[in-house]
Amino acid sequence: MAEREELDAFTSDPAVLGWMQGFPAAADKRLAWARADHMRFPMHRYAFSRMREFVPTARVGRGQGPVWELPEAWRDDLDAVSFTAMGGGAEMSWKDALAANFTDAVCVLHKGALVYERYLGLTRRDTPHIAWSVTKSFVGTLMEMLIHEGRIDPKAPVAALIPEMAASGFADATVGQVMDMTTGLAFSEEYSDPNSGIGAMSNALGLTPRTPGYQGPDSVFGFLPTIGKAGEHGERFMYRTCNTEVLGWLIARTEGKRLQEVLSERIWQPLGMEQDADFLIDGSGMAFAGGGLNPVLRDMARFGEAMRCNGEGNGRQVIPAAVVESVRRGARPEDFARSTYPHLPGWSYRSQWWITHNNRGAFTARGIHGQAIYVDPAAEMVVARFASHPVAANSAIDPASLPAYEALAEHLIRAG
Amino acid sequence: MAEREELDAFTSDPAVLGWMQGFPAAADKRLAWARADHMRFPMHRYAFSRMREFVPTARVGRGQGPVWELPEAWRDDLDAVSFTAMGGGAEMSWKDALAANFTDAVCVLHKGALVYERYLGLTRRDTPHIAWSVTKSFVGTLMEMLIHEGRIDPKAPVAALIPEMAASGFADATVGQVMDMTTGLAFSEEYSDPNSGIGAMSNALGLTPRTPGYQGPDSVFGFLPTIGKAGEHGERFMYRTCNTEVLGWLIARTEGKRLQEVLSERIWQPLGMEQDADFLIDGSGMAFAGGGLNPVLRDMARFGEAMRCNGEGNGRQVIPAAVVESVRRGARPEDFARSTYPHLPGWSYRSQWWITHNNRGAFTARGIHGQAIYVDPAAEMVVARFASHPVAANSAIDPASLPAYEALAEHLIRAG
Repeated sequence: MAEREELDAFTSDPAVLGWMQGFPAAADKRLAWARADHMRFPMHRYAFSRMREFVPTARVGRGQGPVWELPEAWRDDLDAVSFTAMGGGAEMSWKDALAANFTDAVCVLHKGALVYERYLGLTRRDTPHIAWSVTKSFVGTLMEMLIHEGRIDPKAPVAALIPEMAASGFADATVGQVMDMTTGLAFSEEYSDPNSGIGAMSNALGLTPRTPGYQGPDSVFGFLPTIGKAGEHGERFMYRTCNTEVLGWLIARTEGKRLQEVLSERIWQPLGMEQDADFLIDGSGMAFAGGGLNPVLRDMARFGEAMRCNGEGNGRQVIPAAVVESVRRGARPEDFARSTYPHLPGWSYRSQWWITHNNRGAFTARGIHGQAIYVDPAAEMVVARFASHPVAANSAIDPASLPAYEALAEHLIRAG
Repeated sequence: MAEREELDAFTSDPAVLGWMQGFPAAADKRLAWARADHMRFPMHRYAFSRMREFVPTARVGRGQGPVWELPEAWRDDLDAVSFTAMGGGAEMSWKDALAANFTDAVCVLHKGALVYERYLGLTRRDTPHIAWSVTKSFVGTLMEMLIHEGRIDPKAPVAALIPEMAASGFADATVGQVMDMTTGLAFSEEYSDPNSGIGAMSNALGLTPRTPGYQGPDSVFGFLPTIGKAGEHGERFMYRTCNTEVLGWLIARTEGKRLQEVLSERIWQPLGMEQDADFLIDGSGMAFAGGGLNPVLRDMARFGEAMRCNGEGNGRQVIPAAVVESVRRGARPEDFARSTYPHLPGWSYRSQWWITHNNRGAFTARGIHGQAIYVDPAAEMVVARFASHPVAANSAIDPASLPAYEALAEHLIRAG
């Protein structure tokens, strides 16, 4: 096989490479969870839209209600919208950016109507695709809903709500600090290092194959209390997925229900999602709150549209307007500025959403390898995207993505 | 924990035993695939309705079409219907039989309307439950459909269609013999023996944990060619799940599609099923054709209703009438009589369905631990049932089941 550097979006297309095709698939076309193929490019381009075929999953049920039908108002002027990639990069078109970002699926809503939609590789309208950390924004929104209802106090320290965390670095962090990821923790979010915090957590959750003789925690509940403190809470934003796992635990314990059930009851069913979603779970049945949700593209877009419309979607107020307002208000950009995102100036991170603080009020949900919901209120635009970029970090993907979203928003405002 | 002999349907209720309840569940309430808890009573009572949370699964999609709505005409006279259990057993009521059979869910259609429905334990209307060998009847029906279309010749020897099987015991068996399970094979269907054929196959498919250092086949495609011949083909019925795996292979290769896709396109979508189903798969992504389907109860009933109505369901001819006619005609009872079912006199096995040859023309799909679709054409009745009986073999479950179905049919004919 060619080196990954040689493969572009077309030559790494999983349909072209023929993973798992044929009965049986040839030995060199078989992918295996035990080899972590679902995490390695170019194999992950297949696995991202077939996660449930590699690992145990729980269902996020859409129920029996009617689908929230999205009006369609297709337009053909978006492919040509051009922009300059970040950092003095190339001038490129929206269409060029699809391949540059290893896009698997993307759609654009304008004023609530589908104006653009593309499916590439193996992803189709009815194919759930892993959303990675876009999951966090669903979880953060659920947390905001529980806070709004007075069921959780955002000022409470974690140890007061989860006694098992009393000896952990989270003990004296407030719920709000966990939501905004300003906790000071001994946990490294380095995806390429198997000995990092995220690597150890992935092992505990069973999301990646464990080394023979593994003796560590076998669920998120066993892992989280082992995380120590480093620095102070509340001083700066530091992106760490373990925060979201704590939120998942809080939601489950507060509601006395599995996270996937809460998500189904409070978002999936009332929003009239068109498909069930799959949720990766650990050995204890706990959903991987920080990155395990696999929705279909249009359902991710529906969530973005409801957030754009102050919580209204499917003809009803599904998310309280105050919740959306709390998210969109953002957090302190100075806390964000102390983190490691020089290419995102002026941004903040609030309740598991990324807030641009730009002049159109844009905010976004982001997942590794290019997953995104991008909401631009002033442009009345929502973009939902699945991708399988070779690089996990969005810093490699943002240069041809964020300026593309902005150019699209400006075009839609101009062209109407 | 109490010995399994001491546990009845109530004391072994998974909700009562509290498996996987709490955040986290207590250590002694956690179930693990690695310990094969999903195959052991009473733990399997939980797992049968949560299979996708233990193993990788593929989706059988219902698509986007409207649901085939089943009219409801609830009646309260069925619980009291009484019958005598087989073999001079006790007189019991239909209601008593629910617990006797460790029923998880059961519904009855009469003249196309739901007249009775009960959910017990953790199974609900929207909970997929493993159907075990009821799966075979879906697969056999798909095979009949392909034969009807001339895409597969039932007289062709297996080796002519699957060259990889040329050195196996299946080589000179015809497709029809495989469908009717009159193949002569060195394969034992002894569920309690891990060294049996079914045990080895389960290992190859990855449905049960492999022993450390396992070097055997890692997919059904690797396993099936290793099965030898024993005796002659076409002489007697002998129930062996490996036959159905060959049918699954034939369907996938003939259609050039995954079995789950063929099932979705030809049955799940046109019949207007109300939920997606989950299909257990092996490491190569191949569906476990002999027992891996997990539908919801009403969708299993819809399939039975279509078979009762000569292939018509959801307002259209989904299955050709000739296909249903071929199934209902049955096979030779004398081939069946040479097998090991003295309590099923006069029956035959045809295209993966069990044919009673009784005077009402009843036929049935059967799965271990009590899964069933029972169609009684004369009584215009269809019963669908999920169960999690401690014993796998239906010979332990039939005594309080088959007479119950017959009594129900007679009651419905009498009472109208």
